[in-house]
Amino acid sequence: MKIIIIGATGTIGRHVATLFEGKHELIKVGTTKGDYQIDICSEQSIKIFFETIGPFDALISTTGKAAFKSLKDLSNADFRLGLDNKLLGQISLVLIGQHYINPAGSFTLTSGILSEDPVPGGSALSTVNGAINAFVKGAAIELKNDVRINAVSPGVVEDSPSFFEVFPGHIPVKMERVANAYYKSVMGALTGETIRVF
Amino acid sequence: MKIIIIGATGTIGRHVATLFEGKHELIKVGTTKGDYQIDICSEQSIKIFFETIGPFDALISTTGKAAFKSLKDLSNADFRLGLDNKLLGQISLVLIGQHYINPAGSFTLTSGILSEDPVPGGSALSTVNGAINAFVKGAAIELKNDVRINAVSPGVVEDSPSFFEVFPGHIPVKMERVANAYYKSVMGALTGETIRVF
Ligand SMILES: NC(=O)c1ccc[n+]([C@@H]2O[C@H](COP(=O)([O-])OP(=O)(O)OC[C@H]3O[C@@H](n4cnc5c(N)ncnc54)[C@H](OP(=O)(O)O)[C@@H]3O)[C@@H](O)[C@H]2O)c1
Ligand SMILES: NC(=O)c1ccc[n+]([C@@H]2O[C@H](COP(=O)([O-])OP(=O)(O)OC[C@H]3O[C@@H](n4cnc5c(N)ncnc54)[C@H](OP(=O)(O)O)[C@@H]3O)[C@@H](O)[C@H]2O)c1
Repeated sequence: MKIIIIGATGTIGRHVATLFEGKHELIKVGTTKGDYQIDICSEQSIKIFFETIGPFDALISTTGKAAFKSLKDLSNADFRLGLDNKLLGQISLVLIGQHYINPAGSFTLTSGILSEDPVPGGSALSTVNGAINAFVKGAAIELKNDVRINAVSPGVVEDSPSFFEVFPGHIPVKMERVANAYYKSVMGALTGETIRVF
Repeated sequence: MKIIIIGATGTIGRHVATLFEGKHELIKVGTTKGDYQIDICSEQSIKIFFETIGPFDALISTTGKAAFKSLKDLSNADFRLGLDNKLLGQISLVLIGQHYINPAGSFTLTSGILSEDPVPGGSALSTVNGAINAFVKGAAIELKNDVRINAVSPGVVEDSPSFFEVFPGHIPVKMERVANAYYKSVMGALTGETIRVF
């Protein structure tokens, strides 16, 4: 399979890449590192990327930024970061990528635990994560040629100790469990699902 | 109670207004009609409105637009309409309104059935609705002074027959049930909840 990982150089992405490595043709994408550099916030950048690499079988996105800030201090501009980057950035990969993906291919996006188990400061991320989970549900019934789409929703992961303080009582998730959720999405038959890893 | 209804002149909003009418001080808001005209997409317009009307006890939003279009034809720009209007527009009412609302006040936003029970053409609305449901969950744990927040998620309503065709097999919801969900949110004690009416 020809598998694209957007965010392959990140905390989660590098473990996902390791799982597929050697068994499949991997295209590892970042903003500064990886085989290719793209910016998910630029439609132009995404289009050029798909034109360059040609048809593919799976796209995994393990990227996306949003503001982490107290509700009382959150401005529209803070909120917009998450909508433009983690939300519309990932959705753009699907809106554009649907025209390049092979039949029976799959998209796997990343949301996160905060949509269902919120923490103070996390309301922008809660919003974006809930949006992604609902997007894959809505998009799954419209994708053609047996193309599938899922979201992986991780809890705080063991490789991100700097986040532990704002997730009191959360048990950090093992990277192996997180990476396998993406593997399940790509290699299995689920569609329209949020694969929770927490 | 001093109750603001943004979208009070609309299909759903007018029934919500009727339920509160006579018993409370109502401020009915639209873009072209109502006691006041605002644009939820303009921070400036929202700020001027709150400065003008002063402290309030409840804000209900029964407004919000998003694209309804096949996934294969959806562009980023189509998607952005829903993010800017129904999503960030309603969230702005909370981000700004939290600084004007009275203690023990409440916010009630509107999402909709498509986040959990999608239809073809509805993926932008699925996304926005899921985002709103997750936002109220995240925001509820951060609002101060016993201020509450919920979302009402209606199915297709009986007063919107033009939508019935794209909701095959959905049983249109009675306006009385929909209006009472907003009444429950304002007069009850729930917070962080999605009140489903379908
Ligand atoms: N870490 C956690 O505990 C956790 C828990 C739940 C959910 N999540 C979610 O998982 C996702 C990944 O998190 P992470 O911690 O692995 O992030 P990370 O370590 O910051 O890695 C981000 C990855 O995305 C790439 N990237 C950044 N901006 C990009 C852009 N505009 N266009 C394309 N690629 C871009 C980076 O490339 P370069 O390295 O080249 O800059 C990097 O490969 C995020 O959506 C996050 O919210 C994380
Ligand atoms: N109708 C349904 O079956 C249904 C089902 C589920 C969910 N919903 C959701 O419920 C909400 C209301 O739907 P509806 O059918 O009642 O809509 P509607 O009949 O079109 O009414 C919209 C209301 O919002 C006001 N408005 C429009 N744009 C605005 C803006 N930029 N700023 C402030 N106010 C604005 C309108 O004012 P003017 O009249 O002055 O223009 C009107 O009062 C929407 O979010 C919709 O997605 C509807």
